[in-house]
Amino acid sequence: MQPPIDFYFDFSSPYGYLASTRIDALAASYGREAAWRPILLGVAFKATGQAPLLSIPLKGDYAARDIARSARFYGVEYRQPSVFPIGSVAPSRAFYWLAMRDPAGAKRLAAALFRAYFVDDIDISKPENTIATCAKFGLEAASVEAALNDETIKTKLKNEVAMAMNRGVFGSPYIVIDGEPFWGVDRLEQVEKWLANGEF
Amino acid sequence: MQPPIDFYFDFSSPYGYLASTRIDALAASYGREAAWRPILLGVAFKATGQAPLLSIPLKGDYAARDIARSARFYGVEYRQPSVFPIGSVAPSRAFYWLAMRDPAGAKRLAAALFRAYFVDDIDISKPENTIATCAKFGLEAASVEAALNDETIKTKLKNEVAMAMNRGVFGSPYIVIDGEPFWGVDRLEQVEKWLANGEF
Repeated sequence: MQPPIDFYFDFSSPYGYLASTRIDALAASYGREAAWRPILLGVAFKATGQAPLLSIPLKGDYAARDIARSARFYGVEYRQPSVFPIGSVAPSRAFYWLAMRDPAGAKRLAAALFRAYFVDDIDISKPENTIATCAKFGLEAASVEAALNDETIKTKLKNEVAMAMNRGVFGSPYIVIDGEPFWGVDRLEQVEKWLANGEF
Repeated sequence: MQPPIDFYFDFSSPYGYLASTRIDALAASYGREAAWRPILLGVAFKATGQAPLLSIPLKGDYAARDIARSARFYGVEYRQPSVFPIGSVAPSRAFYWLAMRDPAGAKRLAAALFRAYFVDDIDISKPENTIATCAKFGLEAASVEAALNDETIKTKLKNEVAMAMNRGVFGSPYIVIDGEPFWGVDRLEQVEKWLANGEF
């Protein structure tokens, strides 16, 4: 069994959301699994001196249009959230908490959190909204609330972000296959070629 | 006959070079022509507050790798120029000068200039190198040299850049089809879908 490919994303990232709907099937086509690794992109933005996408003159207007069009291109339901971007500490902690005992369930939870934000316009940066989304998903609200404040989980997320930064992750989605990095949902074609043929 | 699609690029842009090898055939498949419009991206970078790609921490290292890999992905010959990025005033002026009397020839000249920079590592920001490349292409060196200093040509390039900025062009390649903008060689799949089906 080959090691999993790493799928880094921020819960606030539209392109990360789009990639999340395709990455598992793509990896599975080539006998691989994807390890989902939510990160906090704000930390990376400090390193690269970048501003949030939609706040950049010219590029921001284009990006709003490109995101909506890319969602239609990939056939993914999408509604631009009314609060954007958001901090993604709460959903990321909920993910890593569940991932410790149920990795497959954590991916399904991530999909539900993405959907809450990018389809139902629920601001999952607010702990109560992440908790409610987790509860709707079938988790016990009190356990989720405790997890969001658990020192072990806080440390786990901090470590994941630090490791991602050390690895050079600066955007979302960011996929690493056997050491080779791919940034952007628009690199999934190159990801596929790499999975199919190895280095090209 | 439908109006041409606009293909904006900077002669210093690797992704613009990659797109230039595919845009005409792509447009022609759908009965369209591409109008090539070299611009000076430095002007746009001032508007968006962006830095040259390879100078950005983390992102720059990734970009160098991604450019080389993307060239292999598209099957395009590519060598990272030893001077990068460069100002593209000279090749852009040569292009617009020839385009005034021979638009098809100007595209072939643009391909030769791109190739000089991205395959043969010739620094075409230097007027003498652009002139030599044009001469090798079959143009008279003295005429090219005069064109690079011609006020009409200088104004033409300035106007093209100003019109591009007014239109919101902030990157290279940047393609506009009937008002719809597409940024990046990685949007050519969406360009193709748009050409095939219209708005999606």
